[in-house]
Amino acid sequence: MLEYSAPQRDIEFLLFDLFRVQQVWKNIPAFADFSDDLVRAVVAEGGKVAGQVMAPVNQQGDEQGCTWNDGVVTTPTGFKAAYDAMAQGGWMGLSGNPVYEGQGMPKMLGCLVEEMFWGANTALYLYGTLTVGSSICIEAHGNEDQKNTYLPKLYSGEWSGAMGLTEAHAGTDLGMIRTRALPHSDGSYRISGTKIFITSGEHDLSQNIVHLVLAKLPGAPEGTRGISLFIVPKFVPDDDGDAGARNSLSSGSIEHKMGIRGSATSVMNFDNATGYLLGEENQGLACMFTMMNYERLSVGIQGLGAAELAYQQAVRYAKDRLQGRSPTGPKNADGPADNLLVHPDVRRMLLTQRAYTEAGRAFGMFVGMQLDLGKYNNDAQALAFSELLTPVAKAFLSERGFECAVLAQQVFGGHGYVKEWGVEQIVRDARIAQIYEGTNGVQALDLIGRKVLRDGGATLLALIDEMRNDDVPEEFAQDLTDAFDRLVRVTASIVERASNDPELAGSVSVDFLDLVGLTIYAWLWARMAGAAPDDEFGNAKRKTARFFFSRILPGAVALELGAGADSDVVMQMTEEEF
Amino acid sequence: MLEYSAPQRDIEFLLFDLFRVQQVWKNIPAFADFSDDLVRAVVAEGGKVAGQVMAPVNQQGDEQGCTWNDGVVTTPTGFKAAYDAMAQGGWMGLSGNPVYEGQGMPKMLGCLVEEMFWGANTALYLYGTLTVGSSICIEAHGNEDQKNTYLPKLYSGEWSGAMGLTEAHAGTDLGMIRTRALPHSDGSYRISGTKIFITSGEHDLSQNIVHLVLAKLPGAPEGTRGISLFIVPKFVPDDDGDAGARNSLSSGSIEHKMGIRGSATSVMNFDNATGYLLGEENQGLACMFTMMNYERLSVGIQGLGAAELAYQQAVRYAKDRLQGRSPTGPKNADGPADNLLVHPDVRRMLLTQRAYTEAGRAFGMFVGMQLDLGKYNNDAQALAFSELLTPVAKAFLSERGFECAVLAQQVFGGHGYVKEWGVEQIVRDARIAQIYEGTNGVQALDLIGRKVLRDGGATLLALIDEMRNDDVPEEFAQDLTDAFDRLVRVTASIVERASNDPELAGSVSVDFLDLVGLTIYAWLWARMAGAAPDDEFGNAKRKTARFFFSRILPGAVALELGAGADSDVVMQMTEEEF
Repeated sequence: MLEYSAPQRDIEFLLFDLFRVQQVWKNIPAFADFSDDLVRAVVAEGGKVAGQVMAPVNQQGDEQGCTWNDGVVTTPTGFKAAYDAMAQGGWMGLSGNPVYEGQGMPKMLGCLVEEMFWGANTALYLYGTLTVGSSICIEAHGNEDQKNTYLPKLYSGEWSGAMGLTEAHAGTDLGMIRTRALPHSDGSYRISGTKIFITSGEHDLSQNIVHLVLAKLPGAPEGTRGISLFIVPKFVPDDDGDAGARNSLSSGSIEHKMGIRGSATSVMNFDNATGYLLGEENQGLACMFTMMNYERLSVGIQGLGAAELAYQQAVRYAKDRLQGRSPTGPKNADGPADNLLVHPDVRRMLLTQRAYTEAGRAFGMFVGMQLDLGKYNNDAQALAFSELLTPVAKAFLSERGFECAVLAQQVFGGHGYVKEWGVEQIVRDARIAQIYEGTNGVQALDLIGRKVLRDGGATLLALIDEMRNDDVPEEFAQDLTDAFDRLVRVTASIVERASNDPELAGSVSVDFLDLVGLTIYAWLWARMAGAAPDDEFGNAKRKTARFFFSRILPGAVALELGAGADSDVVMQMTEEEF
Repeated sequence: MLEYSAPQRDIEFLLFDLFRVQQVWKNIPAFADFSDDLVRAVVAEGGKVAGQVMAPVNQQGDEQGCTWNDGVVTTPTGFKAAYDAMAQGGWMGLSGNPVYEGQGMPKMLGCLVEEMFWGANTALYLYGTLTVGSSICIEAHGNEDQKNTYLPKLYSGEWSGAMGLTEAHAGTDLGMIRTRALPHSDGSYRISGTKIFITSGEHDLSQNIVHLVLAKLPGAPEGTRGISLFIVPKFVPDDDGDAGARNSLSSGSIEHKMGIRGSATSVMNFDNATGYLLGEENQGLACMFTMMNYERLSVGIQGLGAAELAYQQAVRYAKDRLQGRSPTGPKNADGPADNLLVHPDVRRMLLTQRAYTEAGRAFGMFVGMQLDLGKYNNDAQALAFSELLTPVAKAFLSERGFECAVLAQQVFGGHGYVKEWGVEQIVRDARIAQIYEGTNGVQALDLIGRKVLRDGGATLLALIDEMRNDDVPEEFAQDLTDAFDRLVRVTASIVERASNDPELAGSVSVDFLDLVGLTIYAWLWARMAGAAPDDEFGNAKRKTARFFFSRILPGAVALELGAGADSDVVMQMTEEEF
């Protein structure tokens, strides 16, 4: 059975010891009066929903999957009740705008709650994250009427959200979409086209589904400059703001997937469906990116949640399973064998998971802090950091999440490959996070292209300078300085070489993103070791930090060498030679 | 649809240009009169069975899986016909002893055929590899009567094989098995106990199933020194050597697994079943290792087959799928977009797959060559090399196989996550190879403990010396020398540090195995680049070699740093701190 319990102790450490949120929030008027007790209560309550409501229906969700029957999609047994608990607890509106009945809580806290929900039940929380994302997009780009109509319903989870971007021939390349929007005399539009891979596009959990759909207006410019964004609700809101007449859109089928089988992924057919322009004409992609950026961070955190869930199973199994003897002689002499923890390589696997997961949690919160500072304090630097780090969070967290899930499965041996224990499900569920919301290759291109080359590396260098300011324990100081210097060196080299080689950036982008991720994790581990209390929990932190610096950070040396290669190395093969 | 075509051109290159098998075989009397045409015919025929018979039932095998009904196991539609084709073609007896109606072909060739079969249909070929492994074990340890009874039937596939090691509480730690064998007055034994995870333990493909079962005799020594090996056939052979009376063993259930769903994995109950001692009393584990070593190499090659299958899908998709434009301007200006091959990062993923897969193919053959020289020419050095390299082949090939399958899936984007295209099945199928036949952690321990520390690194150093003798192209010579020097340095450091730290070996074993694997691949890539012809195929080889040296081999630098860490780094965490 997959059991999940929220990492309460670590969360409190990050909130109060590492990031000292009291100090951060004192400077953000909207949060200035949050007490520690309030924050603890939110975390505890979120943990309860995750562990006691969402986790228990995780495995049956995978076994049953969703079913499609003539356009009607039925979710697995228990999903409706768990969704209702999530909705009624106000979790979809946790960081929502209080003017429209949101809770107005910091993103820093939202990241932690999202991790719990992802970890407890990835397929189920997908219905939640799309709802949150839709509300963020409408809050940013909607008119007053749209905000009043949609936000309270989305925050309360009565209505849920979906985003319609992909078409069969247009995935990463959205400039090619064919969905059309025709203006209607009443100021609305008529949307026609077929979208694929629509997560939560149709299901039985909410009263209404609010589709945000990319489409082209008549005569719109070619490519991505001619895309507009529309709100296309499953039921058109009536004059009272309730779900009214059924709109002409429907699920044509659902996908059979490797994992997240409790999440319904639809082909959506829009047949002259009523839609409402969201934001400006032909600015749809930019508007959608408000939602995408939220979803990208969230999907990174999905990887983190999967890693935490997987670790919890693996460490419990390693402690219980008796197999073999310690290389230094029996540790459980009265038993038939020692437990798996006596084996150094099992420890290596578990420590790798801890090292990535605990740093990942801190990293997600750090990005959340930049978003909070940017949004509430108009801190331009923080906003720039959040934009720089969003693709890193999406890709690095989801890559490490999958890696950790695979490692946890490995700890189980053969028992990790059979369905009974549930660990193989975590691997299948985690895999999607590397793919959707822009593949991790696309994230790496976004990082190196838009976020680094465009300003000659200035934002990244500013971040490194800021990170260098922190005091860290002596034992890690030199390695950390070396890591910063390495990243500065690699960035400068890429900026220079890319200036006369348009294929250079793409050829080293993934190595570069990994190097950024590892460097930030090194900084976070050094800081966490410094902030760790003098107890069992703190000892584990310091020891895991040592493991990270000795066994994981050396990968950065290889990444520097790899990123030093010319683009020829990948470009010289002809199409025929492949 | 998963389509598979055997990599004929690369195979011929490896056989005739790289390894020059004519020269190798001239010195092995049993193979001295093999013509190139014969070898080509075997490869072509194997490729036909793989691509035209086995591959077409691969996806339906995954969809249907096996079913269990009151002890009777039914394999997916089409498996029986495909198994019969494999059997009737004599493929299970390809490297079998001609005295007992085997084909007597070299292992070098066997490795290539196995790769095709694994690649075409992993779940189906599992029934084959267990059959081959059983025959190898009986040929090595059986008496004349046993060989006459079982080998012709196994070589012909009329009977199939299975190995019974694992019990619920005893996986890696076989010393704890509880299955018992009581001597019977007629010289046979009565076997009682329950084995789990028995691949091909029960199914409907063959007339009989020959279980090789580990059990303990009354009064046997504790632990692994008290284990004996028994032949326990599903039907006891009658006086004519045909399948006779039903033996008292049965399948209690089959596992529901992440992948290889067409392969039936049984719980096997032995209830006073008739068995026959194979080899000496209490020498069962050593005898079983004859089979295990074969299976380990084969499971490594499973990873290779999966990687090849995955690459074939990914490269076809990358050529067909139009998405985005080249960073240097449109390459398919008349089309709506360029194909995926214009994107440097897609090329990086494809080249990584090629670099691992083509070197892996050469590596498997190299191990096969050592086995041939050891077996047929009593070449002690070659035998020692084969023992050294078996765990490397099992683990490094299966790790890279999984990695390549995941990369191929990534090339497909969202289409890689849905079942339709079949790529996600490759990932699920490939995952098991890292786990069974001894997890890859166990392989790494075998390598560092039994194969390196036991002789102070002498065999490995001898192999490195032999590899240094080869002429390689100037452009790779220095990097290759550095790689050899690095491996020598790391080996010496581990040998020295392990002498007074019993936990050191286990704490760095996986990094060490990866370093050995990368170094051998560097040697093979340099040699392949040198032997490549002056044509399109050869150009691709040279370019992939450059990619390997620039982008993959740098990982060795990180592995050296990681393997330099003390065991404290993993051992210092207390059980409570985990």
